Amino acid sequence: MNGLLLRRNLERFFNEDIGTGDLSTELLFELNERGVAEFVAKDDGIFCGQAVIDMGFCLLDEDCSVEIYVQEGERVQKGDVIAKVSGRVGAILTGERVILNLIQRLSGIATMTRRAVELLGDSKTRICDTRKTTPGLRMLEKYAVRCGGGYNHRITLDGGVMLKDNHIAQCGSIRNAVAQVREKVGHMTKIEVETSTEEEVREAVDANADIIMFDNCSPDEAIFYNRLVPRAIVTELSGGITLQNLTQYKDCGVDMISLGCLTHSVKSLDISLRMKGVGQ
Amino acid sequence: MNGLLLRRNLERFFNEDIGTGDLSTELLFELNERGVAEFVAKDDGIFCGQAVIDMGFCLLDEDCSVEIYVQEGERVQKGDVIAKVSGRVGAILTGERVILNLIQRLSGIATMTRRAVELLGDSKTRICDTRKTTPGLRMLEKYAVRCGGGYNHRITLDGGVMLKDNHIAQCGSIRNAVAQVREKVGHMTKIEVETSTEEEVREAVDANADIIMFDNCSPDEAIFYNRLVPRAIVTELSGGITLQNLTQYKDCGVDMISLGCLTHSVKSLDISLRMKGVGQ
Amino acid sequence: MNGLLLRRNLERFFNEDIGTGDLSTELLFELNERGVAEFVAKDDGIFCGQAVIDMGFCLLDEDCSVEIYVQEGERVQKGDVIAKVSGRVGAILTGERVILNLIQRLSGIATMTRRAVELLGDSKTRICDTRKTTPGLRMLEKYAVRCGGGYNHRITLDGGVMLKDNHIAQCGSIRNAVAQVREKVGHMTKIEVETSTEEEVREAVDANADIIMFDNCSPDEAIFYNRLVPRAIVTELSGGITLQNLTQYKDCGVDMISLGCLTHSVKSLDISLRMKGVGQ
Amino acid sequence: MNGLLLRRNLERFFNEDIGTGDLSTELLFELNERGVAEFVAKDDGIFCGQAVIDMGFCLLDEDCSVEIYVQEGERVQKGDVIAKVSGRVGAILTGERVILNLIQRLSGIATMTRRAVELLGDSKTRICDTRKTTPGLRMLEKYAVRCGGGYNHRITLDGGVMLKDNHIAQCGSIRNAVAQVREKVGHMTKIEVETSTEEEVREAVDANADIIMFDNCSPDEAIFYNRLVPRAIVTELSGGITLQNLTQYKDCGVDMISLGCLTHSVKSLDISLRMKGVGQ
Amino acid sequence: MNGLLLRRNLERFFNEDIGTGDLSTELLFELNERGVAEFVAKDDGIFCGQAVIDMGFCLLDEDCSVEIYVQEGERVQKGDVIAKVSGRVGAILTGERVILNLIQRLSGIATMTRRAVELLGDSKTRICDTRKTTPGLRMLEKYAVRCGGGYNHRITLDGGVMLKDNHIAQCGSIRNAVAQVREKVGHMTKIEVETSTEEEVREAVDANADIIMFDNCSPDEAIFYNRLVPRAIVTELSGGITLQNLTQYKDCGVDMISLGCLTHSVKSLDISLRMKGVGQ
Amino acid sequence: MNGLLLRRNLERFFNEDIGTGDLSTELLFELNERGVAEFVAKDDGIFCGQAVIDMGFCLLDEDCSVEIYVQEGERVQKGDVIAKVSGRVGAILTGERVILNLIQRLSGIATMTRRAVELLGDSKTRICDTRKTTPGLRMLEKYAVRCGGGYNHRITLDGGVMLKDNHIAQCGSIRNAVAQVREKVGHMTKIEVETSTEEEVREAVDANADIIMFDNCSPDEAIFYNRLVPRAIVTELSGGITLQNLTQYKDCGVDMISLGCLTHSVKSLDISLRMKGVGQ
Repeated sequence: MNGLLLRRNLERFFNEDIGTGDLSTELLFELNERGVAEFVAKDDGIFCGQAVIDMGFCLLDEDCSVEIYVQEGERVQKGDVIAKVSGRVGAILTGERVILNLIQRLSGIATMTRRAVELLGDSKTRICDTRKTTPGLRMLEKYAVRCGGGYNHRITLDGGVMLKDNHIAQCGSIRNAVAQVREKVGHMTKIEVETSTEEEVREAVDANADIIMFDNCSPDEAIFYNRLVPRAIVTELSGGITLQNLTQYKDCGVDMISLGCLTHSVKSLDISLRMKGVGQ
Repeated sequence: MNGLLLRRNLERFFNEDIGTGDLSTELLFELNERGVAEFVAKDDGIFCGQAVIDMGFCLLDEDCSVEIYVQEGERVQKGDVIAKVSGRVGAILTGERVILNLIQRLSGIATMTRRAVELLGDSKTRICDTRKTTPGLRMLEKYAVRCGGGYNHRITLDGGVMLKDNHIAQCGSIRNAVAQVREKVGHMTKIEVETSTEEEVREAVDANADIIMFDNCSPDEAIFYNRLVPRAIVTELSGGITLQNLTQYKDCGVDMISLGCLTHSVKSLDISLRMKGVGQ
Repeated sequence: MNGLLLRRNLERFFNEDIGTGDLSTELLFELNERGVAEFVAKDDGIFCGQAVIDMGFCLLDEDCSVEIYVQEGERVQKGDVIAKVSGRVGAILTGERVILNLIQRLSGIATMTRRAVELLGDSKTRICDTRKTTPGLRMLEKYAVRCGGGYNHRITLDGGVMLKDNHIAQCGSIRNAVAQVREKVGHMTKIEVETSTEEEVREAVDANADIIMFDNCSPDEAIFYNRLVPRAIVTELSGGITLQNLTQYKDCGVDMISLGCLTHSVKSLDISLRMKGVGQ
Repeated sequence: MNGLLLRRNLERFFNEDIGTGDLSTELLFELNERGVAEFVAKDDGIFCGQAVIDMGFCLLDEDCSVEIYVQEGERVQKGDVIAKVSGRVGAILTGERVILNLIQRLSGIATMTRRAVELLGDSKTRICDTRKTTPGLRMLEKYAVRCGGGYNHRITLDGGVMLKDNHIAQCGSIRNAVAQVREKVGHMTKIEVETSTEEEVREAVDANADIIMFDNCSPDEAIFYNRLVPRAIVTELSGGITLQNLTQYKDCGVDMISLGCLTHSVKSLDISLRMKGVGQ
Repeated sequence: MNGLLLRRNLERFFNEDIGTGDLSTELLFELNERGVAEFVAKDDGIFCGQAVIDMGFCLLDEDCSVEIYVQEGERVQKGDVIAKVSGRVGAILTGERVILNLIQRLSGIATMTRRAVELLGDSKTRICDTRKTTPGLRMLEKYAVRCGGGYNHRITLDGGVMLKDNHIAQCGSIRNAVAQVREKVGHMTKIEVETSTEEEVREAVDANADIIMFDNCSPDEAIFYNRLVPRAIVTELSGGITLQNLTQYKDCGVDMISLGCLTHSVKSLDISLRMKGVGQ
Repeated sequence: MNGLLLRRNLERFFNEDIGTGDLSTELLFELNERGVAEFVAKDDGIFCGQAVIDMGFCLLDEDCSVEIYVQEGERVQKGDVIAKVSGRVGAILTGERVILNLIQRLSGIATMTRRAVELLGDSKTRICDTRKTTPGLRMLEKYAVRCGGGYNHRITLDGGVMLKDNHIAQCGSIRNAVAQVREKVGHMTKIEVETSTEEEVREAVDANADIIMFDNCSPDEAIFYNRLVPRAIVTELSGGITLQNLTQYKDCGVDMISLGCLTHSVKSLDISLRMKGVGQ
């Protein structure tokens, strides 16, 4: 994770929440009053967000100290103490909400990803994310997917080529589309083709795409399509798959299953911050 | 909504997604090729996001034209065409994902808010949001809550005072805390006190708080506490209320019920973008 | 005060002044030469600006040390040493002008505010500011008003509703305007109505505005209008009041008198920086 | 003036004032309702701020139209209509305060500068500003000084060398300081030396400074010092000069008199915005 | 290319050059005086920079019009008119230097890339760039390489994995390093291994790297190493290759030759701007 | 050099290179693994870039320590160790490329500048730069010129006046142009006039320009023109001068020779970073 970018983002998020100052806290606490607080899990799940806690509080109080007891991607149970922060009470209370908003969301993503991974059991299929992340949070949300045991699809539009129906229609055929891109694109860039019929899958194989995605298909279709593709080409299932129907797809033999829900419909993991003492 | 801020945010979101360029699109479409596309609802819900669609595409193609067929906060049904955009195909395809990510989320929030409002039926109690918004999206998410028929709690930490357990402990009593704040705070600022026992409610009434919040209480407690408070003081229920148990609270007589889930655990409303024609 | 915002602003102000470098200083002093300097009051007044001095020099030299001898809002007399800074001479000389420009202005505001407060004597009326602050300095200037003993009116346009003639004309009546806003606005937001005739004051009382402002009126009018308003509604006098005529209004009985001059026509408090030694 | 910088600054200033939205206006006016408003002088003075009005409203409403009736630096009298803006009522009311805050301040600076210039009568001495500008507003304030008929001293610390007591002490003598700088500095950069005794003036002449400043001296001293300096070297009077004592210095024969008060202790020129019609 | 990012960069570049204003131009030309100017090639080469010219002038004068006569990547000869701009004279003269600095550099890169491509003649080996771009100009410089007929290596550190000596030493072997990365990395990400001995090449083949780079080797070594690698793995030559020795490598059979010199040691293509008329 | 600006620029440059993270490094090294690396000259030249190394690594790892063995502007020979950095291996490997890109370029500029200065031998003519710097790097590149022994021409368009053919044509004559500018411009600003004929030189002398530039002339012309100018006016040769023909101009007697090639056609000095140990 790019720490410089994280710091700048955290700063922006704090400013969005604080405005010109935290009235409630500034009016009641001395600037230098110190205290201790703990992050406590209020539900079971996978924790993600060490850097957010650490860098977040340090931005607001460079003399604070943060101890984190749970590793990224580790399971927490209701009641577990995740981290302890000691520093200016003002900084702790002012920063609480933004930091909770972030780590609850990231832990929610990691938790959902882990559940997806577990649903696949010993299948060799991997879970990956999509570009359906919350605008402004892509780096963090893709990091949370990794913490949950998932894999990242491309991060930006310049990090890979994905040929969908509109791109293919434009070129007349999958073969033309792949050839036209391959002629221009650098050797570090992979080309993925979205398919939804047997014919398209066969065309994509002929075109020697690096990755073939089967869009919105049933488990049987997925098995069938996957068999059409040589091992050297990566296969990906996408569209309409949720935690509810994921197990139906676990034995399709595809390399990847991408889940938009991991980031677009997250249930935050409940975590709270508990002041342990003031004036210490 | 502050349009200048929205524009700057959209720019940031696009840059996050695009990086140095949309390889797939730039390699296959002529820069000036034009096309038409439609946003179509894939599920039933409340639409929110006109300004995102309009300003979003204009940022990527200042000569595009956008027609929007659904009003903010209006109900859409699966299959409804929400908006039409005509412009450079490159701009449409490049902007699609970020704009969908936003309007799906905003519409998801508006939809959930509307459901909450409807669950309250003809009760005079209002639904409001919290500060549990996605970092970076507060302005938009609070706007979506309004589109859904909800109300906004304070927007920033300088927009109101909320006295919680730690603030009160610091001053010895609710009375002291309110008095200390009232002595310093401007006349446009309201003071809300969080309470969780009868004693605290009574203390907050005596302290003449502007708003008294009943934290994490049962419907019966809410009714009881609410009766202790004179009409001139606003009452708010908060904590542990979800769409599942909301109706139990609808006749408590409180002025506001605040729901963190409106923004921290959103299910996006499914909307897709359908290219209608290229080269037109 | 939001320290993150202050740091970002100070950085911007330094860059505005420094450009690519402080030629005079860089050409004559070794990078690591250290020195000591003192801020000295050159006139009597109220000091404001601790955080500016402290954070300002630390931005330019993270190893500098700053001691501040005067509390925020405390009175200084000509000749008083306000603060001492020890650090790189280059940082001290380069930062001097921007820091002086700020603390002189802030102290000027605090001084003028204190004078206004004193002119009101033992009246219960409070002094508050307006949105007539210097663009870019709102947080700091409103802070200086507080240091001087004044109160802050709303900080941003989303922090309160103020209904002026144009808003009222749009709705046909004060009653309609207030009702329309009350129907939409959250419970943390207060509604203020600007009035300039007896009829308008009475209408605003009927409309149950949270605050009623008497615009540009004589002391007698103010007294008369104020009596029309029940104690639960805050009253504010505004328009045309300066330090020259303030005492005429001190016994009007209003809750607040807002003074634009506190921030739009400030006389800086004269403070200078005196190098005490170089090479120490 | 750098228009790109002005636009970015205006955007920042609007965001500071607006926050997430102008509640009062958004709740009462339709988004597309249009209106007309006029800027009217409420006092006599010199107007400055065309670009602020023009670019300011265009940022908030790109379809608005602005007509300006008074030239930059032209005299206005109480009651004069300065400019007319037609556009969305929301944009006009939301932008009003920030634009007024700026143009009142800039016009205040231009007015004070013009008064200083007039006090010098037919003297060949010129009035110039200092670096005592409001942080964040240097470009605009120095522009206002020019509109008032004054001249700009250096704009940034890399735009000229100014050798003050500390710099000179560091080098042992004025001669050494000038020589050391001259040895390093580019040929577009001028070197000014601050002096306060006859000896220092003579030394600065010997050192062949480009500009010699006489700091904090009486009119007689100024005349005496000025005679010691050959015509090829520019002379500048600085320190302790205000509009009150300026005429005493008008016949000293110096080239420049620099006045910090032009920017650090400004009285805004009173200008108001008057809605002329809504719904037109 | 990401136009939003380009616009923001151009704005930053203009501000760096202009500061608070273009004194020379503002003092002599009326704000609205219009003129016409042409970009003329002063040397032979490959042109690159349409978007810079077009967007650059539009940022400074939104009513200017730009006609471009030469396509991106097209050859120009000394004396050729590349583009014509009509607009405010002030904008043309103020923007001239920054726009020339950029298009001269980009055209220099395109020219050098084209020369490299031509030196390879009908070889199937492709030329690509590296991360040795000028900080702040990566998007533009990589675009110029493409305009010259070259290909882009990875754009950012998250767009591909490159395992160098330090990474390999850390894991004990190439095999371990590749395996460890493959276990974690998403399916859109390629893994390249840097090798400099036969043993390393063989190891990298066994490890099934996506790309094998031969670092700093002679033409004979390159031929030898390349033969060890199956066609499904991309081969890249890198290190120590310049336009001077490139032809020695043209028949090595590798897929890619990467040249740092394309971007780290550029000779700008000489282009000038010629005013054709003022006041038109 | 303005350290605040440098830090912000370095942050931007790192973000441009890193994106959301350095995959290769993050996947193989523990976050807290430490190591040592050295910068080694791979060629002979003049070093420039201490602050880049120092601040660069500190941005990525605030606990790293940097020792620099070569002074700014000092000569290095192939094999010399320039600096040593100890810190997190991740930070060292992630930061390597951007820091090398910068210091190689800056050292390349310093090296070329030094060569130019040496070619002038004991001539009193000085070498200076132009505004033909790389957009985004002006402060650093002008600093590198100074490290090489050269001088800086104006840094921004508000830091001096340069009257070229278009400006002069606009005013009818050099005399008018200079007079018009002198009438408006502050006393810290110098006026330079570009000339290319004897007549223009004489006119510029009569107009009393501060600096007269001889554009694109032969050595003989330069000598002739220079003799027409009194010593009090600075003379500058510009246009068409490179390291190849510079010695022909060394005895022309002009004060300054400005070389665009110092910054627009730089050959980077080869420097590499060598890991010395990991896990120490």
